[in-house]
Amino acid sequence: MDPKNLLKVALPKGRLFSDVFNILLKAGFKLSKPPEKYFRVESKEKNILFKIFKNRDISPLVASGIYDLGFTSFDWIKENRVEVVELLDLRCGVVKIVAAIHRDVLVSKLLTKKVVCATEYVHIASEFLDGMKLKYNIIPTSGSSESYPPEDSDMIIDIYNTGETVKKNNLKIWQELFTSSLRLIVNPKIYEQKGREVNSFKEKLWIALKGKSF
Amino acid sequence: MDPKNLLKVALPKGRLFSDVFNILLKAGFKLSKPPEKYFRVESKEKNILFKIFKNRDISPLVASGIYDLGFTSFDWIKENRVEVVELLDLRCGVVKIVAAIHRDVLVSKLLTKKVVCATEYVHIASEFLDGMKLKYNIIPTSGSSESYPPEDSDMIIDIYNTGETVKKNNLKIWQELFTSSLRLIVNPKIYEQKGREVNSFKEKLWIALKGKSF
Repeated sequence: MDPKNLLKVALPKGRLFSDVFNILLKAGFKLSKPPEKYFRVESKEKNILFKIFKNRDISPLVASGIYDLGFTSFDWIKENRVEVVELLDLRCGVVKIVAAIHRDVLVSKLLTKKVVCATEYVHIASEFLDGMKLKYNIIPTSGSSESYPPEDSDMIIDIYNTGETVKKNNLKIWQELFTSSLRLIVNPKIYEQKGREVNSFKEKLWIALKGKSF
Repeated sequence: MDPKNLLKVALPKGRLFSDVFNILLKAGFKLSKPPEKYFRVESKEKNILFKIFKNRDISPLVASGIYDLGFTSFDWIKENRVEVVELLDLRCGVVKIVAAIHRDVLVSKLLTKKVVCATEYVHIASEFLDGMKLKYNIIPTSGSSESYPPEDSDMIIDIYNTGETVKKNNLKIWQELFTSSLRLIVNPKIYEQKGREVNSFKEKLWIALKGKSF
């Protein structure tokens, strides 16, 4: 494969993978479903390499130019603070990012003191808590932030999907920060260099998405 | 509960949880198995709080004094470079940390150039690659490093458990760095302050482990 014509496309592992895979099939890409624990999507597209990465790693992979294109969720594009161009909102994998507190805690009481916030989203949390004019400490986590309140943190900032984990851990939503969904992103320099290939890729997805009821 | 007498114990989520839970039961702690997605272990131990966190977050939680004791794997104690005292090696959750490369790559050829290494273990990888006198770039990942070679990295440094993911992604082990297993750790200052409680906790586990065939 000539790297000049090759498009490198990063796909997200986990809950978002099947959404992306189905859209790609619908867009006409000839792909084989990868076996479990195999991080490559075999395809008949000679000029496209599809590989699977952790969702949160995809925007840095695209921003650094290791990948040309990536499918990843808006929350991690925002959290990673990287320079990428968003080409499409695929309007699937829709989740809320929320600030949640223990169900027995009164907000009025909480906000009178320095707030301890456990979160995977350190940048998003800082921005939000600064905006609320609160004094705060952040405990950075790698996930399962729902474990922290009330003993170890006053608040979490986390993804809210079905709400099951929040409810099971006796938390309630205090504020909704924003809604995240799956996006197609491109490296800005690559977009200049491979505009034709990138636009052709985007166009196929765009047509496939038009048939999706929003 | 009087915080002076309360022991806060952090348990790891995921593959290590059932090992820890079974050892605690065997050590005589009266615990209820938590429902899925509930991050608290209810117990009849009035002076012990058991909560569940991501394995990699546990050594920082203990080092910062948020938790007194933690069960966590040696690889993440080493990677996090935190000051904790190791009380017991529980000799379960045994895995190797390895450097792996694509199966078709000749090591002799690989080592003549600057090596790109994808890994979750940035500190461990730097130490290893410095020791090997190699020039290198590290791509920090959040997991699934097996996806990177050969296009995106020459090497990965990762956990090797059953070997399934390494093999499925056409990799082979180049070097074994060390063996990791589950450890009981304590915060050094807490150990001074609550020595009696900590030693009593450790003793119970020690007796339970003696019945374990090594």
